[in-house]
Amino acid sequence: VTRWKNAVASAATQRELKQDVLYREAAQAFRRNGYHGTSLEDVARALGISKPTLYHYVKNKGDLLFQVHMAGAAQALSTVCHDRTLSGIERLRRTTAAYVRSMIDDESYSVIILEEKSLRPEQLAIVVRERDKFEAELLSMVRDGMRDGSIVPGEPRFALFNVLGAVNWVTKWHRPRGDWSIDEIGDGIATFVCRALSPVPNRFVSGNRLLAPPVPDTIRS
Amino acid sequence: VTRWKNAVASAATQRELKQDVLYREAAQAFRRNGYHGTSLEDVARALGISKPTLYHYVKNKGDLLFQVHMAGAAQALSTVCHDRTLSGIERLRRTTAAYVRSMIDDESYSVIILEEKSLRPEQLAIVVRERDKFEAELLSMVRDGMRDGSIVPGEPRFALFNVLGAVNWVTKWHRPRGDWSIDEIGDGIATFVCRALSPVPNRFVSGNRLLAPPVPDTIRS
Repeated sequence: VTRWKNAVASAATQRELKQDVLYREAAQAFRRNGYHGTSLEDVARALGISKPTLYHYVKNKGDLLFQVHMAGAAQALSTVCHDRTLSGIERLRRTTAAYVRSMIDDESYSVIILEEKSLRPEQLAIVVRERDKFEAELLSMVRDGMRDGSIVPGEPRFALFNVLGAVNWVTKWHRPRGDWSIDEIGDGIATFVCRALSPVPNRFVSGNRLLAPPVPDTIRS
Repeated sequence: VTRWKNAVASAATQRELKQDVLYREAAQAFRRNGYHGTSLEDVARALGISKPTLYHYVKNKGDLLFQVHMAGAAQALSTVCHDRTLSGIERLRRTTAAYVRSMIDDESYSVIILEEKSLRPEQLAIVVRERDKFEAELLSMVRDGMRDGSIVPGEPRFALFNVLGAVNWVTKWHRPRGDWSIDEIGDGIATFVCRALSPVPNRFVSGNRLLAPPVPDTIRS
């Protein structure tokens, strides 16, 4: 194993880069083996460093889980499409596709949705607050879409919950090195969500084999 | 507290009825407080019985969690629509609506998706096998729908994963005694799913305020 996976480039940003690699590696371990099934030794070994070295970057396993969750929340926010010239549903399409891709990327911090009960209550509260920011962005796209006519009428929060289910569920079923590419999956889930919410659903085709590939106009409704 | 919540009706089926109530009560406790946050004392107290009495019905907390999961898997299977005269998407619509309702009903055994890591590996294997039966039923509806034209072309398993995300996510966000009725939610999620998968999505409206209430034909596509 190479030390720190060769991610260390410049002296100035070394610490940040190392933390970054550490969080990704830890996320992968937590995803694979769960919080209780992961030890700091495992993470240190995967990074090719000693456990004492690891302690320069993280206080303990609980702290590591917390930091990984915070990195995941920041990553989610970074996928938000802020282009206000676009309709609500188009911003939703771009954001869900990017968010899904970010969650299943090899480099993902992922959300580790299943391990939140291992966080301390005060840590969980902070993580939830961070994640709420992302959900609030999605909700505002849904509201805008209902206002601009690009999303069917309804309760915005109900639509949001359905969207979150479809997009977050990918962490439950996706296996790295499966048959479907990350782009196909992101595009396919965004298509699923937008078809469900659009008043003109057949405008949304995934452009790939996973869901609703483009079809001749004649069989469209 | 009434003993066994007055569920005990006839002598012959007493044991089964008691187990039933026990599993529902345990499911509620696990949902509310997690596996580690729930004790057999809590469950016994909620049922108005003693802990020694409880031990006539369950070996230990791990066994209880396992039995609750098995009851949940059986409940899921009971929601499957088997009417082969219906199209694939119509069977999917009825099944997802019934399944969602069953999961958020007060009487639910629920799926307690988040607590599966607390099961022993051999128990988890059995639970997964049971749950796979339900997912296989959904998958066959999707395949039939792609064949009979009621579902857009694509990868059946991909469509299934998206459906499972939307329906299972309800256990993450639903709060008992919220503003939306169980029927509205079941109907709304089934509508979301069918709009996403149908080649003529606007045939699917929820008939309630949550998602895509019926609209005049003029603004349909």
